[in-house]
Order: sequence, then structure tokens, then C-alpha cells
Amino acid sequence: MKIRPGLLTLLTDFGTADWFAGTMKGVILSRQPGAQIVDITHAIRSGDLRAAAFALAAAYRFFPPGTIHVAVVDPGVGTGRPAIAVESRDYLFVGPDNGVLSFALRRETIRRISRLAEPRYFLPAVSRTFEGRDVFAAVGAHLLAGVPVSRLGPPQKTFHQLDWPAVRAVGNSFRGEVVYLDKFGNALTNLENELVETSGQHWEIRRGQRLLCRVGSSYQSVPLEKPVAVPGSTGFLEVAINGGNAARKLGLRVGDALILACGRVVKR
Amino acid sequence: MKIRPGLLTLLTDFGTADWFAGTMKGVILSRQPGAQIVDITHAIRSGDLRAAAFALAAAYRFFPPGTIHVAVVDPGVGTGRPAIAVESRDYLFVGPDNGVLSFALRRETIRRISRLAEPRYFLPAVSRTFEGRDVFAAVGAHLLAGVPVSRLGPPQKTFHQLDWPAVRAVGNSFRGEVVYLDKFGNALTNLENELVETSGQHWEIRRGQRLLCRVGSSYQSVPLEKPVAVPGSTGFLEVAINGGNAARKLGLRVGDALILACGRVVKR
Amino acid sequence: MKIRPGLLTLLTDFGTADWFAGTMKGVILSRQPGAQIVDITHAIRSGDLRAAAFALAAAYRFFPPGTIHVAVVDPGVGTGRPAIAVESRDYLFVGPDNGVLSFALRRETIRRISRLAEPRYFLPAVSRTFEGRDVFAAVGAHLLAGVPVSRLGPPQKTFHQLDWPAVRAVGNSFRGEVVYLDKFGNALTNLENELVETSGQHWEIRRGQRLLCRVGSSYQSVPLEKPVAVPGSTGFLEVAINGGNAARKLGLRVGDALILACGRVVKR
Repeated sequence: MKIRPGLLTLLTDFGTADWFAGTMKGVILSRQPGAQIVDITHAIRSGDLRAAAFALAAAYRFFPPGTIHVAVVDPGVGTGRPAIAVESRDYLFVGPDNGVLSFALRRETIRRISRLAEPRYFLPAVSRTFEGRDVFAAVGAHLLAGVPVSRLGPPQKTFHQLDWPAVRAVGNSFRGEVVYLDKFGNALTNLENELVETSGQHWEIRRGQRLLCRVGSSYQSVPLEKPVAVPGSTGFLEVAINGGNAARKLGLRVGDALILACGRVVKR
Repeated sequence: MKIRPGLLTLLTDFGTADWFAGTMKGVILSRQPGAQIVDITHAIRSGDLRAAAFALAAAYRFFPPGTIHVAVVDPGVGTGRPAIAVESRDYLFVGPDNGVLSFALRRETIRRISRLAEPRYFLPAVSRTFEGRDVFAAVGAHLLAGVPVSRLGPPQKTFHQLDWPAVRAVGNSFRGEVVYLDKFGNALTNLENELVETSGQHWEIRRGQRLLCRVGSSYQSVPLEKPVAVPGSTGFLEVAINGGNAARKLGLRVGDALILACGRVVKR
Repeated sequence: MKIRPGLLTLLTDFGTADWFAGTMKGVILSRQPGAQIVDITHAIRSGDLRAAAFALAAAYRFFPPGTIHVAVVDPGVGTGRPAIAVESRDYLFVGPDNGVLSFALRRETIRRISRLAEPRYFLPAVSRTFEGRDVFAAVGAHLLAGVPVSRLGPPQKTFHQLDWPAVRAVGNSFRGEVVYLDKFGNALTNLENELVETSGQHWEIRRGQRLLCRVGSSYQSVPLEKPVAVPGSTGFLEVAINGGNAARKLGLRVGDALILACGRVVKR
């Protein structure tokens, strides 16, 4: 990979109420003045590795090749749990090896994984509570400066994978689940858009035996306040309510089972 | 206009809990490495076009000439509703043509309005749910790169206007209303500061027949916990409580009618 | 100090729901195109000077020498209360002289304090409600441009200090208090990490006569859902719950008294 240095993203559960994210930027800019730092989000629910992994996977490919993605959701901070830097064909990734990087890495061609083991790339004093600042921001800054991943520590063959719920085909139907609730209350599923992109078919989403909504082409393909499933911008079907909050109104939660099934053809 | 390229602002209702705003930045920086991107806000209430239009109007003039303002509050996303780019004497604006730009545009000398119609300036695949990323960020990046507004699509004469509530003079009084509630609970009105800037006059704000508060010069011109109306930083009177939250304590909401009237001269 | 110009931080209670922080950036970039601006936080509780002062003190040293720190939590806005710019050996600071800068300044070698008194460094019209934009952002931009602190107004010998609660030694114990609650619900105290860094000692935190928790080395040094005090990343002990929210579960609030005492040696 030809790294175009200069751009680094941050994704954490640190919130923006305190000084945590800002301080990480201070650490990075102390070593790499002028680096460009973009927040993907700092509002992951504390310790929610799956949401963090999903958010990173949804966002990382929209950054230019060579971008360094630093993701820190780290319930094991301070315990010596492994942390890694990963070079893929197009990007660099840094974070704890607890699965937070895994949904993104799974889509990448991995070139090298190093376990972070060289304290000279950390801040001089590493706290037991804020490795985001003392380890991950510092390592990110060194990567920006051109330090190769191989120098950060010994190579590692694999990375910790979070379970991604598989979609099961059952007859003509597909059994999936809700994997993420977004700000608008849209319930993102693990059912890929491609499943419904066969022309001439009418699809619907069922919860148990009950029809939840039909699959439409846009939020507005149903009347206001009515539910609809649409091919979403991350590549997966999402259940929405036109002008409303589907998670709240339909009581949807992460993990809820949903069935994508062929609907009867409905005259319009 | 001589555009000084390089600066772009974002104003959306995407929140910062998910990856939406960050992903827009990725799209922009993929095409224009080194561009400077400033968030005006991403916390507009979902679909609240008036609040978004007000926020943009309050902020945009404080950016240097040539700044590109991208505003995406877009309840019609995915329906093919028109989207526009606008060149004024001093700025460029991009957004859906649903009024989100209108309070700002109304103050500008418009040079050109183009309807966004050239897919070559969008991402290769445009989703039906995230045109903020696939259309607006991409168009913003092309404007940063110097693509003229005229190339983005066919010219358009006007833009969609949101209603701005008119102030009515009734005798010596002015009838206005609350137009925005800010983070501190201050209730911004449509009553212009100039109305009270006649020297020697004492003014007060009434709700119906009842005195709500006097007009003072600063939040602290009344005792702690007491209400006061002050000339606000956006050019409009705002009702505040010294050290408190006026919206909550006085039960003020957007749309509430308020009367600005001459008060009796009070000895101090 | 050799100022390396270009980097400025913002710390306010303006929130990110409105256009306030974004507008400050517009003002700065209008005067200093290309300046790099980092948000420390805008989510200080409205008017909470102590939390703001604590956050600034926790973050500022992680930025490179020469950084300009602008902190605006300003319940006295519009009253003509003094505002200052401060040059220390390594940084510049700008803000109202109400103590918001004081926890940081107390750790710095002060070179010069100027009272902001030269309107030519403000925006042409200064509102009575948003000096963050009209005064502090404008002054920050001039400092970025190289205007020396001495030109901003008359020198001032001291700055307003917020009380920092003293730790009292009582026999072998130390009496401190909770000074900040962070996003994770960790309760940061004024008890310095050094107090417990004597080898061979076992320490515990008591509330009144009651044992609250032992001092451990990391959040995970106790079972899930159990409380522990750990040396924190800002230099002070913090009370946490492994995987939980200590402020909520233990009912801790800023100002609560805590005692750090030698615990009995416990066999493991």
C-alpha cells in the first residue's frame, strides 16, 4: 500500500462531554502537526463492541486509501489485553484486539497484523485507564509519521472476531435480525440489500408470523407514520417509519429476529 | 465571486451518534484531500427544516467569503425531490430544495441556482436513504475542486421558501413569536433588535395580556432566576432567565405569540 | 515562548445542538484561513466553571507548545466582567477572568496576563450575549496571527482563582472529595495518584465509616459490577465500577467527601 499520510479517523465510546477525544487529538498533533483528524463518532454506547464494529465497517471505506482508522472501545483497558495495528491493502487500523476492528477487517485484504508491544511508540507514561490517549493516539501519530506497522511489535496471524449473525435461508425466506439502531430510530438488519434486488419480486418483513412492513424503495414509499423496509446505505435492509422512529414505535431492539419473505403481489 | 476554495461547512440532522457526518467528511476528503470541514451542527431535530434554516442563517455569514455551506435536513430523501446548488455574491450553498437554505439565501444576492442533475458529480451508486453522503457531500467536494455551479445541472430561477413569520405592528406594539429554542433554554424570537434600540424607551415582552419580562441590556440586568429579554447575537430579541432555562421555566415553545410593547418608565 | 502558530482549542458550555461553536470557528477561519481548531468539549454543563476548569486542566498539556486554548464558560457575559489573555511558558490562554482558566494556569509558569481591552481585536459589533464569537474567537484568531498578548490590553498581575478543594491528612488517612463525574460515571477525586503509589500498601476508599471500595490497579482488578478506585489518567484517583456507572450505582456527586485510608492486608 502506498500510504498517503495525513488523515486519521477516530471512533470511540468516550463521548464528547469530557476532554477525552480532544486530548487524543492533542497527542496526535503534538507528534504530527497539521495532521487531519476526522471523528467518525465518539457516541458508541459505553463498551458496545458490536455497535462500534458496525459503525466502523459502515464508514471506513468512504475515506481515501491510506487513511488511518483508530477505534477505541475498550472494556479491557488496563488489563494488558492485546492491542493491534493492521495494514490492509488500502487502510491502516489501530485498536484493541477485542473485535472492534473485525467487521471492517473482514472486508479487507490483510497485509500485516502487529501486536502493539513497543513502548517507545506510546506516551512515556501509560495510564491504566486511558490507553486511547497513551497508546492508541500515540501509535496513530507514529503511523501518520510513516512508522511501518511491522515496527510496532511482533506479527500476529489473526485478529479477534466478533460474531456476525448469519442470515439463514428457509425455503423462499431469509431469517435475519436487527443489528443496529440509528439516530433516526431506523433498525438496520443483517439482511443484504441484494436479497431484494431481484426484479419483479415483492418482499416483506415479518416478525414471527406477523407482517411488520413491506419492502419499498424509499422511506416515502409508504404514507407518513407507516413502516417500510428499504435498502439501506450500508448495504443492508433497514426497517423505518416514514417521518417517525421505527425502533420506538415498533419496539425493535438489537438482536430481534426478522424474516424477509416474498410477499403476495399487490395491485396498486 | 472569487471563491477561495478550501472551506466547507456541514449542517445536518444526522446526529453524531452514528457514522453519518464522519462519512460525509470521508467522501469530501477522498476527492479534496486537505479540505477544511467545519460542523455548524448535526443536532437539528430530525426533519426540523425551520430550525435548520434558522441555524444556517445565524451562522453562515461568520465564515469567510467563498465558504461552501452544505445543509442536509431532508425528510424527502430518496424521492427525487429537487436538490440545488446556489451561488450568491459571497458563498456557495448546497442542499435539498426544501427550504433548508432559504433563510440564508433570502439575505444573499443570488447569482445562480442549479438543480443537481449531473450524476457524474455524485458517488457512483446513490442510495435512497443517504444522499447526504452520496449526493451532497460529493457535490460539495466538486465545488471545493472548483467545478462551477452552472455545471451541476440546469439553472433554476427560484428556490423553495420556508415561511418566516412576519412581525405585525399593532399601535405602538409589535406582535411576534418564538422561532427557536437554544441549548441554554433561551427563546429566540422574530422581533428584531433594532425595534428596541431607540434610546429613551422602555420595552417589555407580554404573553397575551400578561407581562412576561422587561427588555434589558444583558442576561444579568435582572436578578438571578428572573426573566429578561435581551438583544440577541443573531439580530433578534431573545427571552432568557438569568442563570436559568427560560424555555423550561416559562413554558415557551416555538410558535408562541409574544408582544413587544412600550413599558411604563420605571424609576430605578 | 516560541509560539508555533496554527493550533487553537475550544472549550465551552455552548453545546453542539446550535450554531455557536461552529460560528466561533467561522470567525477564526475568516481571519486565519487554514488554522487548525480542536474541540476539547462544548458539553460543559451551562455555567459550570469548576467542571470547565477541571476539563481544561486535564487536557491542555497534551497539546503541542504554542497551542492557544480558548475557554468560554461565561455566566457573566455582557456585564463587562473582565476577560483575559495569558501567556505561560508553553501556551496561550484566552477566556473570561472568572476562574475557568485557573486550574490550568496554576500549573503553568505565567509570563504575562493582559486584560482584553482593545476593541480592534474584537468583531466590529460585540453582542451582549455571545462574546464567545465576538470577543474570544476574534482574539484567538489575532493570537494565531501573531499578535502578542501584551497588545491586547493592560497587564494584570493575577487571575481569578476557583477554589480547589484541599486534601487533608488525618492520621494515616487522607480526606478528599469527588471533583468531577465523567461520561462513564467514574467519579474523579482530588486525591492524587501519588498517595497510593507507595509499594506494599493496601489502600481503600471510605465514605464516612463505610468501606466504598479498595484501590486497585485497573477497572478490571475487581469482578464485573464491583466498585474499585484506580489511579486515573488525570493524575487523581477515580472511583469506578467495572463495566458499570459508579456515579449512578453508588450515588456519588461532585463535592461528596471520601476518605483514602490504609486497608488491612488481605490475603489473596
